[in-house]
Amino acid sequence: MDDQLTAVQWYDGKVRILDQTQLPEDLVLLEISDYHGIVKAIKELSVRGAPAIGVAAAYGVVLATWYLDEVDRAGFLEATNRAILELKNTRPTAKNLFWSLERMRTALTKNLSKPLKDVKLALLKEAKRIQQDDLERCQNIGRYGAELLPNRVNVLTHCNAGALATAGYGTALGMVRAAAEMGKKVHVYADETRPLLQGARLTTFELMEDGIDVTLLCDNMAGYLMQRGVIDVVIVGADRITMNGDVANKIGTYSVAVLANAHKIPFYVAAPFSTFDPDLKTGQDIPIEKRDGDEVRKIGSQWIAPEKVSVINPAFDVTPNHLISAIVTEHGVITPPYVEGIKAKFSVD
Amino acid sequence: MDDQLTAVQWYDGKVRILDQTQLPEDLVLLEISDYHGIVKAIKELSVRGAPAIGVAAAYGVVLATWYLDEVDRAGFLEATNRAILELKNTRPTAKNLFWSLERMRTALTKNLSKPLKDVKLALLKEAKRIQQDDLERCQNIGRYGAELLPNRVNVLTHCNAGALATAGYGTALGMVRAAAEMGKKVHVYADETRPLLQGARLTTFELMEDGIDVTLLCDNMAGYLMQRGVIDVVIVGADRITMNGDVANKIGTYSVAVLANAHKIPFYVAAPFSTFDPDLKTGQDIPIEKRDGDEVRKIGSQWIAPEKVSVINPAFDVTPNHLISAIVTEHGVITPPYVEGIKAKFSVD
Repeated sequence: MDDQLTAVQWYDGKVRILDQTQLPEDLVLLEISDYHGIVKAIKELSVRGAPAIGVAAAYGVVLATWYLDEVDRAGFLEATNRAILELKNTRPTAKNLFWSLERMRTALTKNLSKPLKDVKLALLKEAKRIQQDDLERCQNIGRYGAELLPNRVNVLTHCNAGALATAGYGTALGMVRAAAEMGKKVHVYADETRPLLQGARLTTFELMEDGIDVTLLCDNMAGYLMQRGVIDVVIVGADRITMNGDVANKIGTYSVAVLANAHKIPFYVAAPFSTFDPDLKTGQDIPIEKRDGDEVRKIGSQWIAPEKVSVINPAFDVTPNHLISAIVTEHGVITPPYVEGIKAKFSVD
Repeated sequence: MDDQLTAVQWYDGKVRILDQTQLPEDLVLLEISDYHGIVKAIKELSVRGAPAIGVAAAYGVVLATWYLDEVDRAGFLEATNRAILELKNTRPTAKNLFWSLERMRTALTKNLSKPLKDVKLALLKEAKRIQQDDLERCQNIGRYGAELLPNRVNVLTHCNAGALATAGYGTALGMVRAAAEMGKKVHVYADETRPLLQGARLTTFELMEDGIDVTLLCDNMAGYLMQRGVIDVVIVGADRITMNGDVANKIGTYSVAVLANAHKIPFYVAAPFSTFDPDLKTGQDIPIEKRDGDEVRKIGSQWIAPEKVSVINPAFDVTPNHLISAIVTEHGVITPPYVEGIKAKFSVD
């Protein structure tokens, strides 16, 4: 994908965010010079996907400091901490957001004795490193994961865990890209992923841009395809992974995992270590974001249900470890038993 | 539901069809006096739901004769047969359509020696009987089925198998209505049912009209609810049932059945005997309608995916008998083994 399609970019004191709420119809770059703009972009999903949110938040911290007076050290610290807190409160589920902000806070602490001009530059450097790291992690995930795929393979994926959800390349779609680069023949079946249609709008779009075969389906058609033997593997991303290998990911992932299990289809989760939460033992402890009911009642500006109907709208669900065939990370593939496997790889990170 | 919300009605030489493509936003009655209008209404889903299609097609046959010359017997027969054939070719999956047209053909044959004016009246009488029969069958399904439900129950349903899908009262929602009438506390969770959103648009609408509690969810949220123990039973309708108890129903039904099975939740199918196909042994023989890909790429007039993306759009899927806890019919509840149970009840019909 060319640079224009990168989810988040730093450019000359500003952050450019590709507004994913307007894809694929319109290619709109938001140019943001105030961290409140990053808070808004994360909350409103102009930038989404756990790793991409982490990158955006890191640049948010940079923006919060970038135009500050370089004399008032106490004010600088206070403003930066306030920004970190606000950025942290944008969305509750994706671990990468907190992980990234923690890295920024550490960078701040480590450099705080320097002149404030240098602190700003150190924060920018750290944000850029988070971004570059994520890209490399995705490429490694792709490399390790592609080995799991046969030479001809039909992959079902849910939501968008692609270049647009990360610093680039993607996690689940990183595996697809790496397999295609190795000369494997990959066909992706993309769940549309209601309510916000990231599969229909983003996964199809970025795969078509890259010339990788993709077929769109409604979420409720996945079972039909599996029953007919069309799907060889399922690959999804993750928003948070607990120490036992339970995985929070976009709502509907759990249903796909149950279906894959019933059809004996391998179910792979692809995610960098920034997704793992060392503080949580099981998926039951993961906070699940509930979003506005109108996301279900409407599509865009169009009502598709009675305006007053009661709805549920959880943004994520939790897939228990026993439904997961392997977790593909930048340090290699983890298979059950997960508690031991995750602990071992975590020490590498 | 009041009369205005009846799917199909004969009124003074015309057929009134409540245009379900425009619900719940607009209440539009199509007034049709030519059977081609019925063909169009069925193909374009202004009337949908297997039993309601059967009723509409029967009145289509009446319309095809109603304004014919009452002298030319050969012309009358030819015109009627042509209409039956065209009505038969509107949609391939729902059995009730063919069943209903077969009843009309039998009525035609039986009365053909009478004056043509009387043949017309005999056909109208048969169409009205099909409609009245279906209503009574639904009420009996409701009565038998409600017995299966506990006093407080959360029901998940898929698509719309309600009053709007039948001559009135509904099959799956007939069970819900009957349970509510018996004083049971029923809460319905309605899958929105992509691509055409019959759950979001129709099931919510007709239950809200009747004052029955309903919560809307995206199709991919059903697993989340089951995992949390929210759903007590699943009830769906059917478009065709084979002699071994395999069930064709709206796309996504199979996925819900697999999920219900994984969570040990009873999965009930509610359907009149006009849905059963005595000629088919198993669900593999049921023809599955494939519809236009733009139903997936667009919602209403709004594009939600790249215009050129490849899509699949099967309108139905097949749930194998082993995932079905019981089939509720107007002659009582059938439980496994289905081959014997269906044969026994079929002899009653």
